[in-house]
Amino acid sequence: MGNRVTKLFNIKYPIIQAGMIWCSGWELAAAVTNAGGLGVIGSGSMYPDVLREHIQKCKKATNNGIFAVNVPMLYPDIDKHMDIIVSEGVKVVITSAGNPKTWTSKLKEKGIIVVHVIANAKFAQKAEEAGVDAIVAEGFEAGGHNGREETTTLCLIPIIKQTVKIPVIAAGGIATGRGMLAVMALGAEGVQIGSRFVASQESSANENFKNAVITSQEGDTKLLLKQLTPVRLLKNKFSNDVQIAENNAASVDELSKLLGRGRAKKGMFEGDLMEGELEIGQVAAIIKEIKTAKEIVEEIIEEYNSAKAELMNDKF
Amino acid sequence: MGNRVTKLFNIKYPIIQAGMIWCSGWELAAAVTNAGGLGVIGSGSMYPDVLREHIQKCKKATNNGIFAVNVPMLYPDIDKHMDIIVSEGVKVVITSAGNPKTWTSKLKEKGIIVVHVIANAKFAQKAEEAGVDAIVAEGFEAGGHNGREETTTLCLIPIIKQTVKIPVIAAGGIATGRGMLAVMALGAEGVQIGSRFVASQESSANENFKNAVITSQEGDTKLLLKQLTPVRLLKNKFSNDVQIAENNAASVDELSKLLGRGRAKKGMFEGDLMEGELEIGQVAAIIKEIKTAKEIVEEIIEEYNSAKAELMNDKF
Repeated sequence: MGNRVTKLFNIKYPIIQAGMIWCSGWELAAAVTNAGGLGVIGSGSMYPDVLREHIQKCKKATNNGIFAVNVPMLYPDIDKHMDIIVSEGVKVVITSAGNPKTWTSKLKEKGIIVVHVIANAKFAQKAEEAGVDAIVAEGFEAGGHNGREETTTLCLIPIIKQTVKIPVIAAGGIATGRGMLAVMALGAEGVQIGSRFVASQESSANENFKNAVITSQEGDTKLLLKQLTPVRLLKNKFSNDVQIAENNAASVDELSKLLGRGRAKKGMFEGDLMEGELEIGQVAAIIKEIKTAKEIVEEIIEEYNSAKAELMNDKF
Repeated sequence: MGNRVTKLFNIKYPIIQAGMIWCSGWELAAAVTNAGGLGVIGSGSMYPDVLREHIQKCKKATNNGIFAVNVPMLYPDIDKHMDIIVSEGVKVVITSAGNPKTWTSKLKEKGIIVVHVIANAKFAQKAEEAGVDAIVAEGFEAGGHNGREETTTLCLIPIIKQTVKIPVIAAGGIATGRGMLAVMALGAEGVQIGSRFVASQESSANENFKNAVITSQEGDTKLLLKQLTPVRLLKNKFSNDVQIAENNAASVDELSKLLGRGRAKKGMFEGDLMEGELEIGQVAAIIKEIKTAKEIVEEIIEEYNSAKAELMNDKF
């Protein structure tokens, strides 16, 4: 039973919930962990004392205390975050958006498992050289911040598998058991799932945002702000304003000004569907219901196993 | 043995070679058919008399005469093409880039199997209503002309499976047995493969282009000309000129003028790697050798079966 990813984290299912700003606090992380996956607290939207509170609550709420904190390395107060993570005895850290060398060895010295998120082969290799335990490889269809190469999950996973020997966890475009089976067929040993958990009962996303996700259709997301940091957004008035600015060859300064501050909170946490930034993946188009994290994990595993059995019937 | 796609075409493997301008003449089509897949003549770059010659040669060169002609419906001489297809007794037509209603019933009355290429659910439904026998669903990572929604294969196949009951053939990002297994896990019943066959011995692509494909790396393609018809190109001087024009908010007229006429022939057939249009998919990054079509088909099926057996060992 199990594979390198379930053994690395000591979890039942190789399902890692994505750390998502404004959506994944302790409640979601604990629910995913208690359902047999790896819950992740998204620290990018938290002040240090808020992060500490979430970690402490997550420890109390989980049966086994196995959960991760996601740390975007662009975060200005990253030293404080890392101090809290170490002092609170967090078992797994998932770093993203930065150089994996900066923190990996410091965290591993403390016995912490380190995973790094990448979107291309160059950073996968850097992460492996830095000594991370596993890689999350994230494709173009993923929600939120995204790579510049625009490589899709279907094309990225084989490239990353050729590049590194450590386990590869696939991200971007996965919300179902069939999606999980597809990336496992490519050689991934686990999945990181974001959008599906945004629309969970335990997600801290605003109800307006959750409802926008489950009613969204194919073609309703777009990768924008490529001149700043590419980010996949649900289309709304704000994204339309960005699109118009980009079509008119807006400068980086003009785009920064248009983005302003606090758009992500406004959209995802406060539920302003017009002016807020709504980070979500293309796979939102097939998410139709808000469910508990436990139901989501169980459905994925059930469909994974039934689709696998079905696949066995194809003989060529 | 087999599934709805192999039974529909009466072929051994559910591998459809993509019809590609300047790359897939009778030699490639016949080689794929003789290897057990469905060979396809790409008529979009052929004058009517050239198409007739390719069909006649393909009939002679194939054991069973089972091959298709791909017809982009934007082609100005489409009536002449369709007359030739009917009078020469071609068994399968794959239409793309247009309304599936225009030709489906006329072709089906003649006993011809009709497949239509789509990139979104709306056109999938239209195609099913028009009575086509199967659909090719093509994702963002595919080479050449592409949909406006930018939906990746991993996200597109589940959407199309929810939309239609007829068989779905997945396209975009597939060059290996693992890639085939991944999309079959999503519910596709066949694969359409383009880039891998561009770099085949029997492809009529210029050797310069073939060599550019097998030496290309991750991130070397880009979806461009979105204001005209979006097309995925291998990056070169021409694509760079387009990128600069687009960054400067070039108008549709300016882009049309920059594109000019005959760029695809210049690049893919004549081998001008600087000024030519080089249509190829993201998956080119993992294609490393020019092989015969037979070797390609056999390797894909072999890897498909071994990866499937491996997948069975994962138990959750």
